[in-house]
Amino acid sequence: MKISELSRRSGVPTATIKYYLREGLLPPGRATAATQAEYGEAHVRRLRLIRALIGVRGLSVSAAKDVLEAVSEVEGDTHTLLGVVFGVWPSGAGHEVSVPDPDHSEAGELLATMGWPVTGYNPARQVINQTLETLRSLGMDYDWRSLLPYARLAEKTAALDLDQLQESADPLEKAERAVLLTFLLEPALLALRRLAQEAESNTRYGGAAAEEGGVG
Amino acid sequence: MKISELSRRSGVPTATIKYYLREGLLPPGRATAATQAEYGEAHVRRLRLIRALIGVRGLSVSAAKDVLEAVSEVEGDTHTLLGVVFGVWPSGAGHEVSVPDPDHSEAGELLATMGWPVTGYNPARQVINQTLETLRSLGMDYDWRSLLPYARLAEKTAALDLDQLQESADPLEKAERAVLLTFLLEPALLALRRLAQEAESNTRYGGAAAEEGGVG
Repeated sequence: MKISELSRRSGVPTATIKYYLREGLLPPGRATAATQAEYGEAHVRRLRLIRALIGVRGLSVSAAKDVLEAVSEVEGDTHTLLGVVFGVWPSGAGHEVSVPDPDHSEAGELLATMGWPVTGYNPARQVINQTLETLRSLGMDYDWRSLLPYARLAEKTAALDLDQLQESADPLEKAERAVLLTFLLEPALLALRRLAQEAESNTRYGGAAAEEGGVG
Repeated sequence: MKISELSRRSGVPTATIKYYLREGLLPPGRATAATQAEYGEAHVRRLRLIRALIGVRGLSVSAAKDVLEAVSEVEGDTHTLLGVVFGVWPSGAGHEVSVPDPDHSEAGELLATMGWPVTGYNPARQVINQTLETLRSLGMDYDWRSLLPYARLAEKTAALDLDQLQESADPLEKAERAVLLTFLLEPALLALRRLAQEAESNTRYGGAAAEEGGVG
């Protein structure tokens, strides 16, 4: 297909495609004339992944390039592919990171109790530790044990997430879906919690208001 | 207690307390001398709620003042109290908002299917609608039905959230805990999902990597 068709199929403007070609994010097409080239399905899939990494995950062009290189190295190994795409593992680290890190922080205790095999690279560990510190600094009686029931629900959420990746066999498509579903669903998952909180509050405490209320 | 003790107990600096007194967020203490006043436990609880609304929820001083006024009006009615604190209901709307809004958007369909009694004011509805639109604009085959299994998990999360509020009988304390637990736990809940995704990916796909790996 021509570059105009590639633009239509991928949803990426022609000028942006040319920029990605110059920067080496996208391999050149097959030259058919001095100023024309022919592109294939692999270009469409790669462009969609680039768009997800830059437009959704918010990576810089050079960071996206690193991720794309790592993705092509590990294509057949889904576990490492997902690790690279999620930014859990530094690109280029390969299989070395599959050795679990001993960790006596609160996140480490939580992971051990849940039996979750998670590498020391996952930046989500620090988020857990910092949140617990902040809650305690504000006077809340809270530690990693308080998060255990939430962790059990997160386990079910992650299983749903990975179920939705199993549909795509192509590694680039799998990587694209992983980025879109992980990052774009984040605000929606928090919104579902807010809606469910209101519903649950109504169930527990709403009776009195409903009786009093009405015309306000 | 003196203002210095109030500062120590609430974790809010003396200069900031004086600012809140001038702005009318905090009622004056009982005057004991021309330049001294005596404060009580109600001041401590109110200051902690102000700190949660401004420092954690990110409200402006005048928005926090509106919420505090609404909170004192509805103190005994926990359902309305939580609605006001979460920003679900415009302050001053009172019980009028307990009438459910008919809504044929995707969020409305989701709420109807889940049987969640949620008012039309909850801004989380728009987040759901926008997320689904964005996913489809990027070529994903996704609608509100895709979110149903996540909604069932959100229902369990919300029940955990409300369980943790039941411990405090005092309305101001309940309101403070509601703000802290809802807003501060958000990054931690997303972090738990990331950790669980890595663990689940390792369980499903990690076997090959573990066999190949080791010394990398």
